[in-house]
Amino acid sequence: MGISKRVVYKPADQVDISSTSDEVYVRANVKAPRMTGFLVKLFVWFLELRILSPLLLYILKRENQIHKLVSFVEIEDPPLYVPLHPYEEHKEPETKHLEAGLSPSEQVQQAIECINSLESVRENENNHFRHWTILDYSRAYLSRETTPNKVADQFIASIRKSCNPASRMSFFISCDFEDILRQANESTLRYERGEPLSTLDGVPIAVKDEIDCLPYPTTGGTKWLHKVRPCTDDADCVKRLKLCGAILVGKTNMHELGAGTSGINPHYGATRNPYDVNKITGGSSSGSAAVVSAGLCPAALGVDGGGSVRIPAALCGVVGFKPTFGRVSHAGVLPLNYTVGMVGVLAGTVEDAMIVYSAISAQLPSDQPITEMHPKVHLPLLNLPLPSCMPKVKLAKYDEWFSDCTYDIKLCCSNALIQLQKIYGWETVEVTLPEIEAMRLAHYLTMGSECATALACHLELNMKEVGWDARVALSVYGAFDSKEYLTAQRIRNRQLQIHQKIFDQADVIVTPTTGVTAYTIQDDALKTGELDYINAAALVRYMIAGNFLGLPAVTVPVGYDEGGLPIGLQFIGKPWCEASLIYIAYAVQALCAAGYRKPRVFYDQLSDLKRSENA
Amino acid sequence: MGISKRVVYKPADQVDISSTSDEVYVRANVKAPRMTGFLVKLFVWFLELRILSPLLLYILKRENQIHKLVSFVEIEDPPLYVPLHPYEEHKEPETKHLEAGLSPSEQVQQAIECINSLESVRENENNHFRHWTILDYSRAYLSRETTPNKVADQFIASIRKSCNPASRMSFFISCDFEDILRQANESTLRYERGEPLSTLDGVPIAVKDEIDCLPYPTTGGTKWLHKVRPCTDDADCVKRLKLCGAILVGKTNMHELGAGTSGINPHYGATRNPYDVNKITGGSSSGSAAVVSAGLCPAALGVDGGGSVRIPAALCGVVGFKPTFGRVSHAGVLPLNYTVGMVGVLAGTVEDAMIVYSAISAQLPSDQPITEMHPKVHLPLLNLPLPSCMPKVKLAKYDEWFSDCTYDIKLCCSNALIQLQKIYGWETVEVTLPEIEAMRLAHYLTMGSECATALACHLELNMKEVGWDARVALSVYGAFDSKEYLTAQRIRNRQLQIHQKIFDQADVIVTPTTGVTAYTIQDDALKTGELDYINAAALVRYMIAGNFLGLPAVTVPVGYDEGGLPIGLQFIGKPWCEASLIYIAYAVQALCAAGYRKPRVFYDQLSDLKRSENA
Repeated sequence: MGISKRVVYKPADQVDISSTSDEVYVRANVKAPRMTGFLVKLFVWFLELRILSPLLLYILKRENQIHKLVSFVEIEDPPLYVPLHPYEEHKEPETKHLEAGLSPSEQVQQAIECINSLESVRENENNHFRHWTILDYSRAYLSRETTPNKVADQFIASIRKSCNPASRMSFFISCDFEDILRQANESTLRYERGEPLSTLDGVPIAVKDEIDCLPYPTTGGTKWLHKVRPCTDDADCVKRLKLCGAILVGKTNMHELGAGTSGINPHYGATRNPYDVNKITGGSSSGSAAVVSAGLCPAALGVDGGGSVRIPAALCGVVGFKPTFGRVSHAGVLPLNYTVGMVGVLAGTVEDAMIVYSAISAQLPSDQPITEMHPKVHLPLLNLPLPSCMPKVKLAKYDEWFSDCTYDIKLCCSNALIQLQKIYGWETVEVTLPEIEAMRLAHYLTMGSECATALACHLELNMKEVGWDARVALSVYGAFDSKEYLTAQRIRNRQLQIHQKIFDQADVIVTPTTGVTAYTIQDDALKTGELDYINAAALVRYMIAGNFLGLPAVTVPVGYDEGGLPIGLQFIGKPWCEASLIYIAYAVQALCAAGYRKPRVFYDQLSDLKRSENA
Repeated sequence: MGISKRVVYKPADQVDISSTSDEVYVRANVKAPRMTGFLVKLFVWFLELRILSPLLLYILKRENQIHKLVSFVEIEDPPLYVPLHPYEEHKEPETKHLEAGLSPSEQVQQAIECINSLESVRENENNHFRHWTILDYSRAYLSRETTPNKVADQFIASIRKSCNPASRMSFFISCDFEDILRQANESTLRYERGEPLSTLDGVPIAVKDEIDCLPYPTTGGTKWLHKVRPCTDDADCVKRLKLCGAILVGKTNMHELGAGTSGINPHYGATRNPYDVNKITGGSSSGSAAVVSAGLCPAALGVDGGGSVRIPAALCGVVGFKPTFGRVSHAGVLPLNYTVGMVGVLAGTVEDAMIVYSAISAQLPSDQPITEMHPKVHLPLLNLPLPSCMPKVKLAKYDEWFSDCTYDIKLCCSNALIQLQKIYGWETVEVTLPEIEAMRLAHYLTMGSECATALACHLELNMKEVGWDARVALSVYGAFDSKEYLTAQRIRNRQLQIHQKIFDQADVIVTPTTGVTAYTIQDDALKTGELDYINAAALVRYMIAGNFLGLPAVTVPVGYDEGGLPIGLQFIGKPWCEASLIYIAYAVQALCAAGYRKPRVFYDQLSDLKRSENA
């Protein structure tokens, strides 16, 4: 590699982020054809050949610009290993602070008090469709309109329907009907005694199969991981939901080991998009997005290591919310990586995302040897007329990046910005976000290295049981040297500084959530999975800062493409400023409410219930 | 590698650290013959051959147990990337707290107030030899017995003497006599005006050539690094010393790039041990130890990434003190690694180490993106009769490890412990410190990977200018993959937990400082350097926790081997508990004072001065 071609990163404080910057937007230059079936198997065979694989991996890294943008660069910044942010006071909207030491139920109660409880979404005449919200369930239980028992029966019936050969939705990896009925019964008794644990009592919530939740094994989308790593306790976030009385309804399907974004799982089926069963849901929290979209649960938990909550949320037309790194405990989440993944919430509405967030966010327990002074959780007041809490939001937008998506997405997201300007007076600040492609590659390298390390001792024995597409991913994940890993961490440090500059000028960064909408599940992909790195790069295009820099981010549905498939708009916030993000997402939701369309596959729990009772 | 042979690390909380533990002490099993001259060159040639080198490096890693203890292991702990410790209240001796916001001179003043200023070391009848201390200089200046100008003249004369062909001590890489005289003159004027800046005013202090100090280039012991990385400002610690009025007398010799522990530098000469000029000083802060030992300066700065302050201190019979990671700013120190190196102090006495420490320790500046709440600096009160501050010190000792050194060292260090028990009533607690060899390898891998990354873009052009032994080191440094790096960080996390357990039972860990005393400089090593990994492993045997876990540590001379070469005793402390360490070192010093011997090469600045005046 010639010295003259070497990329030299200038000192981060000299990087120009103005809209007139001469920094060039580098499009993802993915050199990997779509592969399925026999081709994938052949590729795996080559990759696992001891002699040829180093050469093949070298070529892959070179062709995909990893060498150019990460491995062989000049860069001065020291590494930043963990994106844990020291707390800083930021201007936030009018908020409620959760005091330290509150129980999960008490935190939920605080969230409820922030919500305009008069406005029932279902009663809003503008809405053609809206999911049953957590408050809808809670009210129906309190008014004895229905009971958790009846909801559980209905839920089980819907699951059965979704599993029949005609639908094959592949929402869940495991779902224990007896356990659901047991939880529902306990909840029903609590309501009968007039002692529900919280507004979440009796509300069905699904959990990605990457998060420990008894009595289920945690497969991570594999056929073997639960055998070598038995699930012996609930994850911290699941414990907190159980303390609130929520009914944990099962473990949702996911892209195997989170090693992809399509949600096509060769072992448990391709999760299908409720808006069009021939389309992907996106991943890796595929099932969690799909069950919320399909109306089975008002909310679900996912894990977001490279957009895994936000991508499927956007593709399935629901809200996806990933808090700041460190805000939710990682105890009991599969250790597939160490510094990029975090628990996130998928929900039908922003309010519901906030309620679940308030339940699971906590002072960090001591499962991290080094913890910052952990800032208090703030929640925005959503019970004031819009946009009174944050009258002057500044949205940073990098036009070339923002536009690097399909025409429909660009149009829809740009329209949303125009509306935000027109209705609320929010300002869009044009900026340049340099080195985005280098950050994507550095994140890939980091996530991959951490995943390969975390799984190393298990994989040796079980590689043959891994699906073909994940085997390719794992081969590449293990192909980086320690210098590349450390250089990636130096890029992380630069990007943190660059993002801090952006946040000096704006409250949030706004982007489309994905570069493409849900694409077609092709039959040849079902058994071997699919290598489609061009679509994958488009799906993760706007995700990386949320993971690599640990920034909070939220996606809200803002419309549909020509084919009727959902489009999400994403906001990336300052560290620990979840309150601003939730508030902004809420305002966007209010703006777009009139346009929401119901998915084709939809199980309206409570309506169905009433219908069956009336019959 | 067979599965059955795989090392499985049990969960850290189940590791038994009692003296009856069944954990086995693994001796360093270094499979690398001593090499110099043509053999080293041949080895470099092989290592840099594109085709053969991966195989050769694989064999080296396998033979030296890196594969067995790091690369291919089962381990559950998540990685700990940076050994930054959250502050915890510990029982410390009676101390003075330095308030935030004090200037370096004010901090020095606080240190002086902790010292028993009545007891002048030189007046102590028991001492055959003691270095001139900082207080000796200060008093001589204040009493007009001499002036900084005269000391500077004398210093320059001594340097000239040390450089003559008969001695070839190779103390300094650069030393600007004009600059020294200029500083001395300014200091002299300050004393004439009665306005010295602090007790350090006019005191000669040397700086390792790894730390930026104008007007000198920072070579890092190379012939080229200062050309690609010009020194443009003083390092933070140097700035602080200059603010105290200290005379910075030049840049001391070091092992090239800190990539070895012998101190044999092919470009600037092998630094010679003042106790025996045919012996090494140890490294990498070789010159800093030697100038203090030889009486040229009461103190010097070093950098300790793998024992680089403590090893040469022990081999040269001086005090070596390495504070907790993060206590001294790293701004302006060559970035040869990111998470293991820290600035340390070499001094003739514990009090002087404390004075310099008080000058350079500071609230962390924002050169680290993530900083902890930085604890205040505590200093022990050394002006009370011993051992009143800490009447009941508990010393943790791992017998098998403690004894893994030469007979003389073991005898001398054991005797010191017996004396501590007898005179002060301090108790030795027998413990087991498991997985020490795994920690040594994991630290090597970490330091090496970070060094290779930090130098990567410079090395491509300058590899040919690197000395032969350092070229071997750099080849091995670059040979690790990201999984190995991450696994090493998991071992770091385990060891932190294991050490925390030890510190639940004891105040400090006590070890010999090195496994061997200064060994002979052989002529064949002078030009190519020397590969002697067996001696190197013995030199770093007790060093690792101080670097890999960021723990503070101090070495104090406690005696001599049969050949009259110094032996050091090391104490490793709890994070941020420097005060305890200094106090303990002070007590040991008091105990051993009667036995100190003067080095053969010794320049007694002030005595010589008086002699020349009297003549």
